[in-house]
Amino acid sequence: MIIVTKPEATEDQIQHIIERIEEWGFKTDVSRGEQRTVIGVIGDEGSIREKPIAAIAGVESVTPVLKPYKLVAREFRGGTNSVVKIGDVKIGGPEIVLMSGPCSVESKEQITSIAQEIKKAGARVLRGGAFKPRTSPYAFQGLGVEGLKLLAEAREATGLPVITEIMDTKHLEVIEQYADCLQVGARNMQNFSLLKEVGRSKLPVMLKRGMSATIKDLLMSAEYILSEGNFNVLLCERGIRTFETYTRNTLDLNAVPVLKAETHLPVVVDPTHGIGLREHVASMALAAVAAGADAIMTEVHNSPELAKSDGEQALLPHEYMDLVARVRKVAAAVNRAL
Amino acid sequence: MIIVTKPEATEDQIQHIIERIEEWGFKTDVSRGEQRTVIGVIGDEGSIREKPIAAIAGVESVTPVLKPYKLVAREFRGGTNSVVKIGDVKIGGPEIVLMSGPCSVESKEQITSIAQEIKKAGARVLRGGAFKPRTSPYAFQGLGVEGLKLLAEAREATGLPVITEIMDTKHLEVIEQYADCLQVGARNMQNFSLLKEVGRSKLPVMLKRGMSATIKDLLMSAEYILSEGNFNVLLCERGIRTFETYTRNTLDLNAVPVLKAETHLPVVVDPTHGIGLREHVASMALAAVAAGADAIMTEVHNSPELAKSDGEQALLPHEYMDLVARVRKVAAAVNRAL
Amino acid sequence: MIIVTKPEATEDQIQHIIERIEEWGFKTDVSRGEQRTVIGVIGDEGSIREKPIAAIAGVESVTPVLKPYKLVAREFRGGTNSVVKIGDVKIGGPEIVLMSGPCSVESKEQITSIAQEIKKAGARVLRGGAFKPRTSPYAFQGLGVEGLKLLAEAREATGLPVITEIMDTKHLEVIEQYADCLQVGARNMQNFSLLKEVGRSKLPVMLKRGMSATIKDLLMSAEYILSEGNFNVLLCERGIRTFETYTRNTLDLNAVPVLKAETHLPVVVDPTHGIGLREHVASMALAAVAAGADAIMTEVHNSPELAKSDGEQALLPHEYMDLVARVRKVAAAVNRAL
Amino acid sequence: MIIVTKPEATEDQIQHIIERIEEWGFKTDVSRGEQRTVIGVIGDEGSIREKPIAAIAGVESVTPVLKPYKLVAREFRGGTNSVVKIGDVKIGGPEIVLMSGPCSVESKEQITSIAQEIKKAGARVLRGGAFKPRTSPYAFQGLGVEGLKLLAEAREATGLPVITEIMDTKHLEVIEQYADCLQVGARNMQNFSLLKEVGRSKLPVMLKRGMSATIKDLLMSAEYILSEGNFNVLLCERGIRTFETYTRNTLDLNAVPVLKAETHLPVVVDPTHGIGLREHVASMALAAVAAGADAIMTEVHNSPELAKSDGEQALLPHEYMDLVARVRKVAAAVNRAL
Repeated sequence: MIIVTKPEATEDQIQHIIERIEEWGFKTDVSRGEQRTVIGVIGDEGSIREKPIAAIAGVESVTPVLKPYKLVAREFRGGTNSVVKIGDVKIGGPEIVLMSGPCSVESKEQITSIAQEIKKAGARVLRGGAFKPRTSPYAFQGLGVEGLKLLAEAREATGLPVITEIMDTKHLEVIEQYADCLQVGARNMQNFSLLKEVGRSKLPVMLKRGMSATIKDLLMSAEYILSEGNFNVLLCERGIRTFETYTRNTLDLNAVPVLKAETHLPVVVDPTHGIGLREHVASMALAAVAAGADAIMTEVHNSPELAKSDGEQALLPHEYMDLVARVRKVAAAVNRAL
Repeated sequence: MIIVTKPEATEDQIQHIIERIEEWGFKTDVSRGEQRTVIGVIGDEGSIREKPIAAIAGVESVTPVLKPYKLVAREFRGGTNSVVKIGDVKIGGPEIVLMSGPCSVESKEQITSIAQEIKKAGARVLRGGAFKPRTSPYAFQGLGVEGLKLLAEAREATGLPVITEIMDTKHLEVIEQYADCLQVGARNMQNFSLLKEVGRSKLPVMLKRGMSATIKDLLMSAEYILSEGNFNVLLCERGIRTFETYTRNTLDLNAVPVLKAETHLPVVVDPTHGIGLREHVASMALAAVAAGADAIMTEVHNSPELAKSDGEQALLPHEYMDLVARVRKVAAAVNRAL
Repeated sequence: MIIVTKPEATEDQIQHIIERIEEWGFKTDVSRGEQRTVIGVIGDEGSIREKPIAAIAGVESVTPVLKPYKLVAREFRGGTNSVVKIGDVKIGGPEIVLMSGPCSVESKEQITSIAQEIKKAGARVLRGGAFKPRTSPYAFQGLGVEGLKLLAEAREATGLPVITEIMDTKHLEVIEQYADCLQVGARNMQNFSLLKEVGRSKLPVMLKRGMSATIKDLLMSAEYILSEGNFNVLLCERGIRTFETYTRNTLDLNAVPVLKAETHLPVVVDPTHGIGLREHVASMALAAVAAGADAIMTEVHNSPELAKSDGEQALLPHEYMDLVARVRKVAAAVNRAL
Repeated sequence: MIIVTKPEATEDQIQHIIERIEEWGFKTDVSRGEQRTVIGVIGDEGSIREKPIAAIAGVESVTPVLKPYKLVAREFRGGTNSVVKIGDVKIGGPEIVLMSGPCSVESKEQITSIAQEIKKAGARVLRGGAFKPRTSPYAFQGLGVEGLKLLAEAREATGLPVITEIMDTKHLEVIEQYADCLQVGARNMQNFSLLKEVGRSKLPVMLKRGMSATIKDLLMSAEYILSEGNFNVLLCERGIRTFETYTRNTLDLNAVPVLKAETHLPVVVDPTHGIGLREHVASMALAAVAAGADAIMTEVHNSPELAKSDGEQALLPHEYMDLVARVRKVAAAVNRAL
């Protein structure tokens, strides 16, 4: 940790800063410049970080030297990639995995037929919402446990493992009965109670980046899950909120190479929410693969204009089929396979 | 709801849009321009909003005519202001209410002495975190139930009612035993399970605006709480996330007059998180009062450089005393009292 | 144009709105709902847009039906793509064009040797700054006219046409003597005097998106250039400013398919500024190609640690060679060639 | 300047960093930790800043110790405030100055009558645009030199000095003939050619913050003007661009106390553009005064619904009169006068 003092900091203030730090059991390395004094704080950076150094009079800035995350850091695995399994499907290895399905589970017919369609197209994981986070209390909130059961039936019919969102710590037990992977949505990325709870689950967790979360925030939220013992975590870029209004969100593909460099965890991209416009989802799926994503999650619906949520961004099965063919070629061009 | 069709929309597509809407039981009002057709959809706008109109081929844009919120809308109360009580303290009336206290409850001595100091200065509600949302799993997570008990003791010692954060639906019962007002934090503003749960509580709720939440999002989240029957809701502007890095957040005071115009609910401003720099909290508190806030929440600590969280933004008691004196003058200038 | 009135708008106000619009020579189509009146304004939308309708008492919102741009709109060219030539190099056709070179021209040796290296690697246009927009007045401001001459010498040595930035209307004449394409930088995207001036040039113009410009803003700025008669305009996505601090900017690749759908103009992507981190430029270049970009601009320097600007994001020639090989494969996968 | 090396940096790389820095003539202070090496660079920080340290292999981060601005820094004036004069009106002293007028000069009658109205209300500087930066090339572009003449006539009629926008270096001479203060608009805040040119003018300059400019960027742009010799600079906060769409911009009042602490230059706030909604301009003007602004600029029009630009945010003269009365009271509450 490096402390820079204010230009007007008095000698007494500087002494007090040094004393306080030494009282806390850390060493200091003081370098006095003409206009500012720089104090290096030496010791366990995790413990130093916990101290309210910035609150001491005379301190202008406090800059950490080390990253705040440990378990998710690439170094933690010696530079190797983690491979996370959803059912038998491996994510983070040489193959790019396609995850797909409707925004919401609506009926047995709907979810099963979509599952069959996407399986045929090449998808390997089925998504579908049973508990739905909706901006409006008057919007369709999902079928709940009934939706979970329908997902399990669709899995039985197709063999595709199932990922579904968890919104409340109280639902963990029931979701664990039916699903193969838990999704923590963007709006709950900093719901720390939920992160701790899924950190104690045996199921893998896909953590979606919050709309205003920095890459570091995303990694810190993943750190919560790993620190509870669950290392089977996927990180999902799904678009951040910016001033741009043409698109639903701004898909931040910069995050893909950055995350691959910072962490050993696999990286998923959701171009559907990332752009929010059906006709452009395919372009962004291709871009995500080229950028280095390990998996792509897209929404598919067999009748978008009757969908109970997000119809305007769902692909039709034949559009999805076409997308997969194109993804396959780009994957090959970056030495990956589907 | 107003639909504009794409320039390339075919006559068949336009017919299909109209049929679909009429199938759903709404009426249409079609106006054909040279380049676009405009279709007005007439009927209950809440129901229309639920339909995936944007997913129908040929639709370029869908623009709602009415606001998506009802219970929180100013019209709902005939244009009058709601007054929400925390204990016996009324918020939303002619008096501006000061809410204050430390970021986290740390010890009996700490919380009680701070409570006494702020009461002397003029604060009327005591804040203090027992369950703390922290970016890092390695940071102090709050004293939990023990913290709640200490808050209750500080209330007993001072008579100040207590507001504290709820992070998990599972904690509602225990928090209700000790606190006078529930706080839903910025990171949980779209934790819809939590919103529904506090919507069934008898305690008032202060809902903080999420870091990337629009004013409309904030109102929709409040609508969740009211729609469950709890009308005692305070809205709190606490800064949004922008590209500016000098300050912790960007306090969006525009939100104050906008919220006062859009909703009957009282508006609280938290300048402490809104700027995040102790030396500038007072300026922003004054600005918030001038902008029309009904209450001001600030963090105060008797020893910020030993605080377990957010020390760098906490005011010392004597600074707070000074702030209150200045707030009093600005309040009078806008015809409010403390 | 569609006007929605306020719920509290009086009959007199509604009449006044209608009269004002008719006075201006437009027709109206009035539809009275229970809570709001909707007034369609019929006539030349360009003229309607100029009227301060939102300023009339009782108006809640004004929503345009048509796009505000004409000449840049895809419809204007009947849905075909414009091909813009820099020297003899065509951009916007089936081939993806690589543009490259150092941030700043520094010396004859530097620019000529870099030009030779990038030509060998496959680049077809040479970039280099002679007039440099720098945040600090104390930073290197470019070699000015001397830099232009060196660029022309590098062109002579390699045959690569040259693109360079124009920052001031006063420099147009001299830049036209030496360069093959004008670049308007992000910071000048809404320098309307400059846009008009380059709109009267015979050289093609590459217009970079401003850091806080929406896609619509970018198109409107391009419209300025076309409306002065210069149709040879390239649009360049180079990253927008968001809350993310890990990367220099947030490369908004969503803009690529959106621009390709909205306009006939070619789309360039600058991954160098878009991510700002040398080790990740290649990933973003690949992603840009997959998303549908027509050209890729990257910074290359033969000695980044001695560069006078932006060394940390410049690729070394051998890294660039590697990038081109990878781009070639992704281009082929999306049915484009280099 | 403080360099932190990458965890994987080799001893050779660290040696190379140190050698390079010493070659450049600076001293180093090396502190080796377990995971990172920290290298302090000692010497003239302005010169160090110019070197591409971040481009050297093995460097993870480079953190400056000193601020990048000198002349605008509060320290430069020994902590005192600069007072800038527009005509005879002093800004930055104990009195808060009101600047007002229409968005655009439209006619002699319009500008003179508005000037008379605002003077009567208490304004001391007249604003009005002659050269207008408009998003659309088809929108009213201002009366140009004719507008300047009308402004000068309005000054003659009222005695109010005049501020008007400069958009092009070529217009400096003619604007200097008619105006008392130059305005550099938000879109030109980083038009560095223009900044240098107005830096050589004898007129004071009001520099508006760009829509995506950080506070530091704004100060660096002001530094350009001062570094050319013109110290009569006012800084204007006018709203930044965020994800919020209810308001035109997000007025960042945090910037007011921060700028007052960082620089000796006076701070102006423009609530009209900052919120963009006529009915809420007054609230934000009051908030700006409470936050510590030295001057308030607002748009006033005698017939907003006939205005050629920005009618929806202009106040009517009687609304402005009311605003001034309220501002006067808040100014007094913070020990300022009008």
